[in-house]
This record gives sequence, C-alpha cells and structure tokens, in this order.
Amino acid sequence: MSALLKELGEISGEAGLVTGEALAERLIPHGQPMAIVRPESTEAVSATLAACNAAGQTVVPYGGLTGLVEATAANPTEIALSLERMNQIEEIDIASRTMTVQAGVPLQLVQEAAEAAGLMFPLDIGARGSATIGGNVATNAGGNRVIRYGMMRDQILGMEVVLADGTVLSSLNKIIKNNTGYDLKQLFIGSEGTLGIVTRLVLRLRPMPVSQQMAFLAANSFNEVTDILNRLDGKLGGSLSAFEVLWQDYYQLVTTPPAAGKPPLAAGYAYYILVEALGGDEVADSERFLTVLSEAMEDGVIADGAIAQSQGERDAMWAIRDDVGQVRQFRPVFSFDISVPLNQMDSYVTELKQSLNDRWAHNQCMVFGHLGDGNLHIVVGVGDKSLKAEVESVVYAGLPARGGSVSAEHGIGIQKKPYLSMSRSSEELALMRTLKQALDPNQILNPGKILS
Amino acid sequence: MSALLKELGEISGEAGLVTGEALAERLIPHGQPMAIVRPESTEAVSATLAACNAAGQTVVPYGGLTGLVEATAANPTEIALSLERMNQIEEIDIASRTMTVQAGVPLQLVQEAAEAAGLMFPLDIGARGSATIGGNVATNAGGNRVIRYGMMRDQILGMEVVLADGTVLSSLNKIIKNNTGYDLKQLFIGSEGTLGIVTRLVLRLRPMPVSQQMAFLAANSFNEVTDILNRLDGKLGGSLSAFEVLWQDYYQLVTTPPAAGKPPLAAGYAYYILVEALGGDEVADSERFLTVLSEAMEDGVIADGAIAQSQGERDAMWAIRDDVGQVRQFRPVFSFDISVPLNQMDSYVTELKQSLNDRWAHNQCMVFGHLGDGNLHIVVGVGDKSLKAEVESVVYAGLPARGGSVSAEHGIGIQKKPYLSMSRSSEELALMRTLKQALDPNQILNPGKILS
Repeated sequence: MSALLKELGEISGEAGLVTGEALAERLIPHGQPMAIVRPESTEAVSATLAACNAAGQTVVPYGGLTGLVEATAANPTEIALSLERMNQIEEIDIASRTMTVQAGVPLQLVQEAAEAAGLMFPLDIGARGSATIGGNVATNAGGNRVIRYGMMRDQILGMEVVLADGTVLSSLNKIIKNNTGYDLKQLFIGSEGTLGIVTRLVLRLRPMPVSQQMAFLAANSFNEVTDILNRLDGKLGGSLSAFEVLWQDYYQLVTTPPAAGKPPLAAGYAYYILVEALGGDEVADSERFLTVLSEAMEDGVIADGAIAQSQGERDAMWAIRDDVGQVRQFRPVFSFDISVPLNQMDSYVTELKQSLNDRWAHNQCMVFGHLGDGNLHIVVGVGDKSLKAEVESVVYAGLPARGGSVSAEHGIGIQKKPYLSMSRSSEELALMRTLKQALDPNQILNPGKILS
Repeated sequence: MSALLKELGEISGEAGLVTGEALAERLIPHGQPMAIVRPESTEAVSATLAACNAAGQTVVPYGGLTGLVEATAANPTEIALSLERMNQIEEIDIASRTMTVQAGVPLQLVQEAAEAAGLMFPLDIGARGSATIGGNVATNAGGNRVIRYGMMRDQILGMEVVLADGTVLSSLNKIIKNNTGYDLKQLFIGSEGTLGIVTRLVLRLRPMPVSQQMAFLAANSFNEVTDILNRLDGKLGGSLSAFEVLWQDYYQLVTTPPAAGKPPLAAGYAYYILVEALGGDEVADSERFLTVLSEAMEDGVIADGAIAQSQGERDAMWAIRDDVGQVRQFRPVFSFDISVPLNQMDSYVTELKQSLNDRWAHNQCMVFGHLGDGNLHIVVGVGDKSLKAEVESVVYAGLPARGGSVSAEHGIGIQKKPYLSMSRSSEELALMRTLKQALDPNQILNPGKILS
C-alpha cells in the first residue's frame, strides 16, 4: 500500500478505507477507483484533500452514484471520496424553517425528516432513495416541482465545502438574505465536484401543503398547451406545482399494457398534461381547481380532462408520468434532457421528429417533460446501439439556434462534454477554466469532468 | 486631455464623454471621477474596458447611483462608466415570459413594460424610478416581495457581462434550467461591479396577479408574530407576497402627525404586521384571506386586525409601512439593514434595545422590516452624529453569534467594509480575493469596494 493510502487510512480509520476485495465487491458504475475513502467528518475530508493535493493525487467525489452523465467515473489511478459516512441530519429549526445536514444524507431521508417536523423539502427526483443531498448540490438537481419551488440551488441557504487544498469554507447561514460580498456557495452548486467537496448544508424548508389537486388534461395543439399553462399559473395564484406534458406517443406507451397505468383520458389527442397544485385549504382549493379547469374547458382550450378524486388516483397519475421504464420496450434507446424556450419548443420537437424520420424510417421518439420549466426529456430508439453519436447530433442540432441547452438537469460529466460548446460560448468555457485553475490549481478534483 | 481619455472619447463619441464643466454640473454622490464615459453598446463597453485595462486605469461602474453603501464612490484618478445610454428594452417574449433589456433601464420602466404586456416583474424597491436594472444585479436587490418571488438573483435567466479585459461573456439564456457547467452569471450578481460590468439581461417575468388582499394585524408577542407567519404561509397556498413587521415605536411614528398615515389599528400593541397576498381570483381569494385571518383571530393569535377594502386603503397601508422618511424627526439617525434567523430575532432586538438604553439614556430605536425573509431595517438615533462607529458596533455586536448578516440587501460597498468580517470568515474572504484576482488581475474594476 502506498504511503498516501496509508495516510488516508490513518485519517479515516480502517473502516474508512475500502481497497482490494472489499472494493471489488462493490457495484460501482463507470469504473473502479484505486480505493474509496470514507471520511466521517469535515476535518477528515479536509485532511484527505490536503494530503491528496500535496501528492498530486486525483480525487473523484462519490454521492449516491445515481448521476446520469458519468460525473463519478473513476479509474485505478484515482481515489474516490465517498460521503456515505457523513449521513447525519444535525438540526431541524422549525422557527427558521431550516434543516442542517451532512452531505451524505439521501434525499428521501431529508424529505421524510422535514415531513415529520410538519414542513416540506420540495426537491424530488426519481432517485430519491439513493441520491444524496450533496450529489443533488453537485448536479443542481431539478425534478418535478421546479415550476413552484425552483431547483436545488433555490433550496440552499448555507453550505460548508472543502476546497482542493483542504481549506474548509464554512458558510452555514440560515438566513435568506445575505448581501455580504460574493455569494460563494453559488460557485459550487452544479459544479459536479470539480471545484470543492460539499460536506454540510443548511436547507430551506417550506410550509407543508395540506391539499393536493391533480388532473390529467388533453390538448389538441401546442398553443393550447401554453395557453393552459398561462391560465393555471395565473389563476391558481401561486399554488401550481407541476405542469408535466406527455406527447401522444409517450402517453400511449405508458397507458398501454405491459405498462400498468390505466389511461385517464382517451387516446388520440396530441398532448396530455399532468397538472398538480399544492395548497393550504382542501375545500377551497378543490373548488378553485375545478372552476379554473371548467372555464378552460368551456373556452375550448382543454379538449378533455379528468380530475383525481382520491390519493390513489393522484398516485396513479404520477405513476403514469413516471413510468419511464417502459421505453425499454424499444431498446436500445438513447435518453436526452434538454431545455428550449417555450416559444421555440413546438418547432424544435416537430423538426426533430422530421429529422429522425428522414434518417431512420423506423424510429421511436418519445417526448415528455417539465414543460412549465422549458425542460423536455426525449427518448429515441433507432434499433442500433452503435448509432449513439449520430442520434445525439440530430437531437442537439436544433438547440443552439433556439437558445436551448444540451443539459437541463443532468449536468455534463463525461457524457455530454462533446456537446458542451453547443450551449456555452468559448468565452464562457474560458472563464470556467479560469475558475477551475483558481480553485484547484493542481487539478485534483474530479478531473476530466465538465472540462477537459 | 490624456491619450486614454481621447481614446475613450473616440469609442463612445463626443456625447459619450463627460468631463470638465459638464461633469462639475452633475450631482454625483460620493466623489467626482476624472470623467464619465457613457458607452452606447456592449462593444463600446468592451473597448472601453480593454483600453482601461491596458492602461491600468481604474473604472467605477455607474447605474442609477441610488446605492446605500457608497459602492459607486469615485475620485479624480478614476473613470466612471455609466450605463445610462444603454437603456433599451429589446424584447418581451410573452410565451417564454422573458424580457431582454440593456442594463441601464430603470427598474420602474421594466415593471411598466411587463405590466403593459400583461405580465409582472416582481422586484420592487423604493428607488425604482432611478435605480437601474444593472444596479439591481450588482447589489442583488431585495425589496418587499422577496418572500414570494425571491431577490434579484431569482429574476435573472440570462446575462451579458463585460470582463475587466474587455471580454464579452454572453449568456443570454431564456431558459430556467441549464446545467451545462458552472452557472457563471451567479458570480456577478451581488458583486457590486468588482468582477465585471453587466450590459444586458434576460429577466424572468411572472403571471400578473389579478387580486391583491391586504391587512394590518396586531400581535402581543413575537411568538404570535411567527405563528401568524407560519399560518398564512401555509394556508394562503403560495400567494403570500409580503409579511412586513413594524415594532411598536416605528408604527407609532408613522401613524402619528406629522406623518400623514392614519392608524389602521389602535396604538399599544407590541407588533404590527402588514400582510399582502397576490392571487388569481378576486372573490375566492378575498374569502380565503378573511377565513384564514378570522381563524387566527378566534384562536387568539391575532390581537387585532383591519382588512383593506379598496385600492385606496391598500395603498394607504403600504404608504404607512414605507414612510421611512419620518425617522428624520430624530436626526441625526443611522440606518441599518441586517438579517438574523427568525428564531433569534426577538432576542436580538431585545438585547439591542437594552444595549442602547444602557449606553444612551435618550435614544431612538425604530425596528421594522421584511420579517418573512429574516431581514430587519433598524434606525437608531442617539443625538450625536459623531457616534456612528459606536452605534454600528452596538447594532452589529449581536449578529455573529446568531449567524446574522451585517447586510441583508444593501451590500458592502465602502461603508460596511469594516464589518464584513463579522459575517464572513477569513477563508471566505480569501476565496473572494482569489476570484477577484482571477477575473480582474489588474484590479481596475471598482477598486476598494467590498474588499480592500
């Protein structure tokens, strides 16, 4: 064992260093590191990074390893630093509506702890059971309720982060407003572990909603979809929490066996919309929800609609939207996570489908996503696993001219690096490199991710 | 005229260079610069900064000059760069709900243009008529509706900024979600012109509310105040847009002649609260507002209350809250803008009043502010203008141990530099210096502001 590994073992203890057989037994996506160190404290993270920085040893931060762009890929020359033993919820402050947590706590435990305190942590993604809150910071996670509550960036009041040289930067604020110099925490949010390792967070909690209204709606044109969005966002007075659109193909896929979901609305409409509003008064909220939807239906904007009448029906509606696994029927498929301004979205999707049809007579193109945020998920199958790069170039081709993004939520990691310059200018990339050089001059933190 | 000034005159034209008598005639707070350059385009800003950077010439960015911490202070060795001729609203995109503007547009014109398009730009501060949108970015402005819509940071989707060396960094996104590498715009928000000069912005617009509910409430204890906040924030279902608290002394000041405001509630309560909710349905919203307030009153949480019945009454309620000018009755006074976590706020204010009384038998201490955001404005008079530093040290003394901030909204500039280290650690200050050095190695941008 190298002198450095020995030193890291002393810092984190025997149980804190995973090598050899124990390492081989772990299921690690995207490559085996030399070792996994598992520090139990901020001080241990600091000592670990200081030692690695002095030795020029590269370090790959590990959260829940649920990322989708290979941002945690490692190789046998690299050491992985896992936050899995820093998994304590340290404080819930009900009056200030904050929760102080270590970065290795899984998202779901944060949600449950907030709920147990009568509050809500609104960020929610499918990987909630494994994804850690620190990983959510590193990727600036999004999810289903961004339209109302924002992304992970908007849930963070305070942050403790360890820099490449071991410096502990502690900004564990509980306050919403703090204009005292540069807001340093912003730099680390979404930086995919390349600028520092987040160790603790002060999270912002929200009032727990007492009512949940949901409906599935159908629309015949994209103009009607945006019209419905504007009506609901205006008339539901701040309570609209999800506006998820399923293009026809995807709706049919997830409401037809072998999918378990029963279709809440007849097939054949161009667009299906899952709408959710979270409010503070069951009776008044359900009346308002019904009124707003009824008006839109009378005005002919909504073609058809079904309002969930029970928790079971609400859960079933979300399950339909979330049954992304059905796309496996068309394997091999490629998945995308793009943003495009709302006034360009219809033309983008139309053009994309046309391009795919022109190129591959038999293709599958499933489109759905968080339309209220301009974010679409697109799944494409062309029957050939080797055509990934070709499909990518078709999907991304329409984005730059429309001011779209090749990554709305998932980040860049390694997978999307070839396309980063489609969403960022050379000046932006140069400034990113300047920042990386300033914060991590020895390039030890998650090298080769985002930037080469 | 120096060679550099001649070059700057060529870049911005004759009307773009203000020197000599024309300069002397301008009312400029905090010191006269050598000249004011007024570029009309991003290219001209870029050429100006490139020339100044090459010459080692320091530059002070000018917005509306309404800042409160001397962040635009200049001296005759410095050149001021004013955005006053970059004052175009370039586009309003109703479908994407965005507005693209040049940085020199006054805030109020942005608000009015949004309203004319049937949308809302929610940021609002007292200086709206003069303060520019670029200045709002530089200070990360807050204001009255942060509890619902966030600060300036939350209103920005895209940004174009010119770096110290003239590099134009263009990130004029219209999309909400864009996880493609570091979110560079965050770096410049709240950096008070020390890292770059913002030239254009894509602003996020919101649905225009159709109903405005307002009330003045009274409470006997601070616990009741936070109880009311939690009830309203939960039960009004996302529509709560302001929760402004006036401590007894301030309420009395602004509802007693010579103040024009008529008291909506009897004197003598410990706390007065101005509550506002913005919604989408006049009838349903007013019913809900009444129901929620009535319940809290029946439960004895609200001691007294008055609901505004007309636009005139609503305007009058805001006018009472905003009649800060009345503090001039106690001149000389010193004004503060602090944040403190909600669970520490009562003890902080109690301790502050005690400390002031211990030190100055005859003092005035008026407290009011955006309690929903943890932000208080405090005005202190001790009858002696020369005691500013002494009063400051008393007001700030209780903040560090409570995790408070010496500047919630106003920034640091020059005025609050001596106290910056009370809210920021030496590691944080070191990283700020690292960033400043990386982005502005010749230290030409607004030198001496925030950092020395």
